[in-house]
Amino acid sequence: MILMTIDETLATAVSGMPVAPTRGRLRPLGVGEVTLRPGFWQQRQDTNAARTLDHIGHWLEKAGWLANFDGGERRGREFADTEVYKYLEALAWEYGRTRDPEIDLRYRAVVRRVVAAQEPDGYLNTKYGRPGQAPRYSDLEWGHELYSFGYLIQAAVARARTYGPDELLDAAIRAADHVCAEFGPQGRNAICGHAEIEPALVELYRLTGVRRYLDQARLFVERHGHGTLADIEFGRSYFQDDIPVRDADVFRGHAVRATYLAAGAVDVAVETGDSGLLEAVTRQWRNTVARRTYITGGMGSRHQDEAFGDDFVLPPDRAYSETCAGVGSVLLSWRLLLAHGDPRYADLIERTLFNVIATAPGDGGDRFFYTNTLHQRTLGAEPPADVQVPRAASNLRAPWFDVSCCPTNLARTFASLAAYVATADDDGLQIHQYTSATIRTGAYHLEIDTAYPDDGLISIRIVAGPDTPWTLSLRVPAWASGATLDGLPLRRGLVQLRRRFTAGQVLQLRLPVQPRLVTADDRIDAVRGTVAVERGPVVYCLESVDVPPHVAFDALRLDPDAVPVEADGTVVVTCRPTAAADHDWPYRPAVPAGAVEAVRVPLHPYHRWARRGPSTMRVWIPLTPER
Amino acid sequence: MILMTIDETLATAVSGMPVAPTRGRLRPLGVGEVTLRPGFWQQRQDTNAARTLDHIGHWLEKAGWLANFDGGERRGREFADTEVYKYLEALAWEYGRTRDPEIDLRYRAVVRRVVAAQEPDGYLNTKYGRPGQAPRYSDLEWGHELYSFGYLIQAAVARARTYGPDELLDAAIRAADHVCAEFGPQGRNAICGHAEIEPALVELYRLTGVRRYLDQARLFVERHGHGTLADIEFGRSYFQDDIPVRDADVFRGHAVRATYLAAGAVDVAVETGDSGLLEAVTRQWRNTVARRTYITGGMGSRHQDEAFGDDFVLPPDRAYSETCAGVGSVLLSWRLLLAHGDPRYADLIERTLFNVIATAPGDGGDRFFYTNTLHQRTLGAEPPADVQVPRAASNLRAPWFDVSCCPTNLARTFASLAAYVATADDDGLQIHQYTSATIRTGAYHLEIDTAYPDDGLISIRIVAGPDTPWTLSLRVPAWASGATLDGLPLRRGLVQLRRRFTAGQVLQLRLPVQPRLVTADDRIDAVRGTVAVERGPVVYCLESVDVPPHVAFDALRLDPDAVPVEADGTVVVTCRPTAAADHDWPYRPAVPAGAVEAVRVPLHPYHRWARRGPSTMRVWIPLTPER
Repeated sequence: MILMTIDETLATAVSGMPVAPTRGRLRPLGVGEVTLRPGFWQQRQDTNAARTLDHIGHWLEKAGWLANFDGGERRGREFADTEVYKYLEALAWEYGRTRDPEIDLRYRAVVRRVVAAQEPDGYLNTKYGRPGQAPRYSDLEWGHELYSFGYLIQAAVARARTYGPDELLDAAIRAADHVCAEFGPQGRNAICGHAEIEPALVELYRLTGVRRYLDQARLFVERHGHGTLADIEFGRSYFQDDIPVRDADVFRGHAVRATYLAAGAVDVAVETGDSGLLEAVTRQWRNTVARRTYITGGMGSRHQDEAFGDDFVLPPDRAYSETCAGVGSVLLSWRLLLAHGDPRYADLIERTLFNVIATAPGDGGDRFFYTNTLHQRTLGAEPPADVQVPRAASNLRAPWFDVSCCPTNLARTFASLAAYVATADDDGLQIHQYTSATIRTGAYHLEIDTAYPDDGLISIRIVAGPDTPWTLSLRVPAWASGATLDGLPLRRGLVQLRRRFTAGQVLQLRLPVQPRLVTADDRIDAVRGTVAVERGPVVYCLESVDVPPHVAFDALRLDPDAVPVEADGTVVVTCRPTAAADHDWPYRPAVPAGAVEAVRVPLHPYHRWARRGPSTMRVWIPLTPER
Repeated sequence: MILMTIDETLATAVSGMPVAPTRGRLRPLGVGEVTLRPGFWQQRQDTNAARTLDHIGHWLEKAGWLANFDGGERRGREFADTEVYKYLEALAWEYGRTRDPEIDLRYRAVVRRVVAAQEPDGYLNTKYGRPGQAPRYSDLEWGHELYSFGYLIQAAVARARTYGPDELLDAAIRAADHVCAEFGPQGRNAICGHAEIEPALVELYRLTGVRRYLDQARLFVERHGHGTLADIEFGRSYFQDDIPVRDADVFRGHAVRATYLAAGAVDVAVETGDSGLLEAVTRQWRNTVARRTYITGGMGSRHQDEAFGDDFVLPPDRAYSETCAGVGSVLLSWRLLLAHGDPRYADLIERTLFNVIATAPGDGGDRFFYTNTLHQRTLGAEPPADVQVPRAASNLRAPWFDVSCCPTNLARTFASLAAYVATADDDGLQIHQYTSATIRTGAYHLEIDTAYPDDGLISIRIVAGPDTPWTLSLRVPAWASGATLDGLPLRRGLVQLRRRFTAGQVLQLRLPVQPRLVTADDRIDAVRGTVAVERGPVVYCLESVDVPPHVAFDALRLDPDAVPVEADGTVVVTCRPTAAADHDWPYRPAVPAGAVEAVRVPLHPYHRWARRGPSTMRVWIPLTPER
């Protein structure tokens, strides 16, 4: 591990990093150091800036969640305050990226209302503790009070790292001090039902250097798994209070809670040099990715408790794959990447970005999937633009939800996305995600140009760099068998080029993005006898709008012997429909399939599904019977 | 349809029928006319009498749900009163079956406490309307007040039909009159969030002849589907308030609510001669059985809302298949059987009885499955005997639940089970379920002897019958290809023997119960590439306790070319284990399976699973790869 100096810690304070560890294998770059240029991700970041931030601001007023800070009748769920905080965090990153004064004004206007609601002792929550409300901390299982403080702190840290200390940071510090007094070693032996305070306190420690915040985060992490929360219907695994963090082997329970807690545990482990804790989370990540993760990178299969299922229970039907769990997974994998430097964490980030994060928002930036199913059997009806929908499980993108965590979580992710592209260490730079971008940090200035993932060619131009030899590391994704650099074959994993680079030199990385058929581990029972189609990092899907009207969508069976071909981002596969007939009772001896005419059907990227109106859809396509 | 006279209606009053239509194709027999003798079902009925009724009585006191009627602090969920009513109904059927004076005393003791809690205007609910409680009918979505009245009425009707009118019937009539006044044509245009009042009011009409109760039931049925209830997170389909009953094509939403409402709709349709309504429910039943029913007969696949999934979404993993939905399905199919006379309704009843109803209770009659999954992946730990468990989804049978509807629903079903064995019409008798039993009704006296379902031989002795020719109808189940009667082949369906029977004559029906492999409709994606094993009406399963220790349970693949054999109720199949290996990422090109040694493993009836301690289990067994 590289130990950074205090000076370096201070130097990173306004460089715009979402996560700023003081130690670890890799050093992150901030939104001031990496800038996206036109391409897949910049388009989404622009939509976020041009549409989503307005949309969120509009709904926070309309739903009354912002007005909750002004007093009056409290509206929304227990955690409604946090949508305001995530909105502030998104504005902070956006300002860091663009220095747009209008964004700055908007941020300040909201902050004024937020800080006015803080109690003299630092407590700040619009749902508890006022006359007529339930007392503070009277419902740790469901009250989300510490979770709310966590997002408040994250927003203040984002602002401090993109602008500097402000009155929100003062409020966040008062809140953190209150939390430390209330829940410290001499205080309540308790945790919050939803993790989030843990990574937030570590980030506040990283920003301020105040050790007490790190100690408090460590306390919260260590208190998990000792049953201080009630045994609710979903079990204590729901909030990871079933097994101590360092004893668990796999993520379980509510997927957002699980990934947030794990992120906080990595932060604590890194800052305290606790290799046992770091190894525990690393093991849990490894087992979860091997057994409890959808092909899209999505996490959490259950609707009932928004939770991970047992190993290999990954039904595409009603896959929950909550958008926020995708964000949580990225935040966690990013921390593990910084700690270990292993490219598999960036592999999962890439998969999750292209197949969960890119899937959730509508093209207009004003509608969102809360869940990201892998099999849609019925045509939905698009919710009206002005209606807050009660259901997370909407099968079409909705403008706002009763529980509306996902839109704001996406907004802060898109606004800070450049920070996940590359890192540095004492020996050079590492490029983890491929997208057109400019990287300027220290003596380095690189320009990346690519039409990835539509095309596999990535050009990296060294505009400037140290005169001495240095190392440029490039990730060759695990799926990229046959990748080349300047025509020479590359092995998958991390390619490290140590040399004296010349200014103006261009490297050409080529990742193979022809379509490929993928099967699942046979223990994932729900997709036995099917294949999925991937192209580069993108998972494809079959949508009913692309199927000829005379062919039943349910009857399509992919012929694995007919190689899929690709043109213009569309993959065309050959299917032989079965003749599905209704029976009074659907369980009976098998009837051999008759010969049928093959049809060729196009597949589109999964992240594009349901953008052409209601459609039924499947990622996993059944194979033609073998006899 | 046969129109019964008023005299006939009165005559059936104490003959012990759970359902007593005044018209329909078939006339039910009561628990006073059919008596079970030693065999599969009598054993369960005896356990119910000897253990389960005591167990329920104990827990109703321990949990405080019975004491709620005495006043003091209200305990339990909104619908806790109904467990007391179902307990009373079970005691009523048990008394009708055995005339045991101890049962009679127990019934009377509970009734005294219940009726004392009734308000002067007929209202009776321990959760609402008293000082400090929420007002009556202030939460129709979740309050379950009319649902509670329904069970109160059903208990009183059961008592009237097995003993005669008593003070509980007086209370039920006062309650029904209150409901009619409050929710009649001039009252609130509203329904209850959980159907049950509908069939109850029709049964009260059948008992008393008071037309107003039938009219009120019809009003409630017709009011469904007009959105008088709120659009909750699960949608209005949850309580069947999304589509009018006569317009729907399939059951949807909460499976117990759906089957109870359908039962009430059939009752209303039959009594009012409303053939359109009857046909609507018949169509919904047909589509639900063809597309939304587990091989066990279980209904409802979702945990989140205890609801039906979309067509063909029937994952064995975490199959919900609530025990109470099994009861609801039997109650509904029985009504359709009486109305139409079609044996497929009795086919589904048989399947549900042997694979849901027989599965739920533990051997001791003091533990129960709330849900009946078809694939258990992890070993559970048996809940302690004295603990009320918060979770419906317990993977081992539990003594009592926070929501404890299933034990009491099973108790009333077992106590009245004899009533579902046979029916009569003007031309003779129909035998629907095969179990050792005595049937005595009018001039008929039959004795049935069988070791079914272990053995397929069923002997039917005509002890006495009319001197004139009459018709004995026997159901040949849809699975029973190759059935014979006295050695002569029978077609599946209803076999009608019209003849002059001689006293003492014995008929020998033989149903083929050799094991058979069954595959699912290809659209049930979750079980593609697997088979289930059935033997007679019984679904079998593979349990980890039967697998040799050196073979991984998950690795077993059934060889469909090796015919399963049967000995002593155990079926032995041949499996070729795969060599499952862990990978960092579970989605990749398929690897051909190597040759492995075959193992022979026993399967046991599904209803016997988890009776030998914790075990993993599967009903659907993957097939060996074909190449």
